[in-house]
Amino acid sequence: MQDLIRPLVVRNSSKILMLVMDGLGGLPAPEGPDKGKTELEAAETPHMDALAREGACGLHVPVKPAITPGSGPGHLGLFGYDPQVYQIGRGILEALGLDMEIKDTDIAIRGNYATMRDGLIEDRRAGRIPTEEGKKLTARLQQRVREVDGVEVTFVQGMEHRLAIRLRFPGKMPPGSQSIEDTDPQETGKEPLPIEAETPEAERVAGVARKVLEEAAQVLKEEEKANYLLLRGFSQLPDMPSFEEAYGLRALAIAAYPMYRGVAKLVGMRAPDLTGDLREEFDVLRGNYGKYDFFFFHVKKVDSYGEDGNFEAKKRKIEEVDRFLPKLLELGFDVATITGDHSTPSALRSHSWHPVPVLIKAPYVLGALSQGFSERECLRGELGIFRSVGLMPLLLANAGRLKKFGA
Amino acid sequence: MQDLIRPLVVRNSSKILMLVMDGLGGLPAPEGPDKGKTELEAAETPHMDALAREGACGLHVPVKPAITPGSGPGHLGLFGYDPQVYQIGRGILEALGLDMEIKDTDIAIRGNYATMRDGLIEDRRAGRIPTEEGKKLTARLQQRVREVDGVEVTFVQGMEHRLAIRLRFPGKMPPGSQSIEDTDPQETGKEPLPIEAETPEAERVAGVARKVLEEAAQVLKEEEKANYLLLRGFSQLPDMPSFEEAYGLRALAIAAYPMYRGVAKLVGMRAPDLTGDLREEFDVLRGNYGKYDFFFFHVKKVDSYGEDGNFEAKKRKIEEVDRFLPKLLELGFDVATITGDHSTPSALRSHSWHPVPVLIKAPYVLGALSQGFSERECLRGELGIFRSVGLMPLLLANAGRLKKFGA
Repeated sequence: MQDLIRPLVVRNSSKILMLVMDGLGGLPAPEGPDKGKTELEAAETPHMDALAREGACGLHVPVKPAITPGSGPGHLGLFGYDPQVYQIGRGILEALGLDMEIKDTDIAIRGNYATMRDGLIEDRRAGRIPTEEGKKLTARLQQRVREVDGVEVTFVQGMEHRLAIRLRFPGKMPPGSQSIEDTDPQETGKEPLPIEAETPEAERVAGVARKVLEEAAQVLKEEEKANYLLLRGFSQLPDMPSFEEAYGLRALAIAAYPMYRGVAKLVGMRAPDLTGDLREEFDVLRGNYGKYDFFFFHVKKVDSYGEDGNFEAKKRKIEEVDRFLPKLLELGFDVATITGDHSTPSALRSHSWHPVPVLIKAPYVLGALSQGFSERECLRGELGIFRSVGLMPLLLANAGRLKKFGA
Repeated sequence: MQDLIRPLVVRNSSKILMLVMDGLGGLPAPEGPDKGKTELEAAETPHMDALAREGACGLHVPVKPAITPGSGPGHLGLFGYDPQVYQIGRGILEALGLDMEIKDTDIAIRGNYATMRDGLIEDRRAGRIPTEEGKKLTARLQQRVREVDGVEVTFVQGMEHRLAIRLRFPGKMPPGSQSIEDTDPQETGKEPLPIEAETPEAERVAGVARKVLEEAAQVLKEEEKANYLLLRGFSQLPDMPSFEEAYGLRALAIAAYPMYRGVAKLVGMRAPDLTGDLREEFDVLRGNYGKYDFFFFHVKKVDSYGEDGNFEAKKRKIEEVDRFLPKLLELGFDVATITGDHSTPSALRSHSWHPVPVLIKAPYVLGALSQGFSERECLRGELGIFRSVGLMPLLLANAGRLKKFGA
């Protein structure tokens, strides 16, 4: 898709908004006052409903029908990058989200502080130590482990027991260098798994990672809880075009969670550090409105409540976003889309494979097909059911940013 | 699709039913009391209608839009094997359906007893000789022709004038070995076509087949009607994963016709010999319910009546299946789908290219979109129009048998 549109891209002064309610898609409540309605159907969303009636609606499929996407693939799809082509490790996403710069010389790893007793994992999360405590430990690790075999080692603290580790090699790392399984056995009472290369290209990385782990274990050994590290998501940067290269768009991400800021940065968006408060985020967006062409606005909690199985809270969060919408749209975007990165039905308490409702507000659409914004109403819409990678081209076309194909 | 889902497959104790009414899709009756209604719309199907109202509906496209599939491609698509990738010769299907074992050393051929006069084909089916007579001739052929040039030759009688021939070579046959055109000129009053290799790999097979045909003609030359053989559908086993390998499913086929049992066995289903009586078939299914995860239930006659152009009988057969449905579903499948392998509109008296209605009964669907089970109502459904190979992944997802893709 990107190969097709790249030569067609033109720049203009249009502004595009992509408002993503994470995990937006849902399923009917099996009982209670909203029985038979999805979260989005049950929510009072007068503004979104009006946009759906006037706009172009449909449903998008993040990876392929029946496939439940993780958050990374879900967002890559929205951004127009085929998630089957660009498979991005959790290590990269975590590191980017923690504001770590990642280059093609780097291998990124997610770490967990863990509790080890007599060679066995007693707690995979070291009792979820407070972030402040993790920060101190991570600083100590950084002080003691800076370089191994000519490879620069950088530790950054995440939330609670989580951290990211970057191994910066002297030269570009060949594809396959990241092929190392997690050391987390996923169960307590077991030994951590050894660091083993699955490809010849990964041998060097495995060797360095083993030494880093040994030295880190030495540093941590006197700790009561966080006396060991589990390493997961060994990954390297995929070779992908930036938003600017692919679409000619200068893009700003309004997102509070590391993971989503990470994906946004991966495609070259600027992603300032934010708290998740809608008002504060709005102010940042407004303050930057003149400097960017594309605005990715991410609302995490819709997904979180879905994962908690909390139908009511998910519904309320959607309502909160709806109330906030008029103010946001007053900024005057030429094209705006409202959607999710995947479905997270409260009934399933997890991400799911169900297509995600999407609406596009733009001047040149048919409209008058959907009665409101919901999974079922979007089925009646002019966009049909389409792969998520098709959304960005639609936004560009609606913004007058795509030339004619062929003469 | 299978490459994408294979690493995501998990096993659990769920039971999946795939009920296939062969040739289910239809077109409006041009006249009569059901004028304007399709066979499925005209049929009284209260149980399927109820399932369609609650379940997920759509239409599937066996090969590509506008392409009319044969029975082999139709079923392969339903089973999740891309029929453009896995092209399976009629010889293989016929042989498997006649309970012949086929290995990668084998070339399978369909044979027709034919009547030859003065070097020209007088009857391509030898007057459709009774199966009993064919059986005797085939036994005689087997007695006289057992081996040619070190290749084991096996004949098995089918229905009436039909038989299958297996050439078992000493080693694995390279791809392309089956590239030999049918000898059937498709018209009477013509000479049979010569056995000619279309690829270098097929030379050896062609040489053996010529000798087999010469010897068979010698054996048959005194027969009044069945004095010659026409050879069709030279084919070899494609390299395809089994249902268990692809999906982690132990699968049972409830199918009476050789062709369908053949396709089922090709993907590793167990396919006991059955008569096509719904009650008997139900008993076999019930008796095996504990031993399998997936049940393919095939009803042939819906297609047969469509091919006869018998709208009324096709409608009645669908109604019979509907009456049988509650008893079948009482077994308690976690996920059930009802569909066809292709359309066979009575108005066309043949297979057709029209998308096939499908419903999925499962706990995690939107539902409440279709008013009943029919081609037109399925168009309103949440599944949209999708390629048949997408059905198996949907069933797996609905049965909780697919993990998340990516982090």
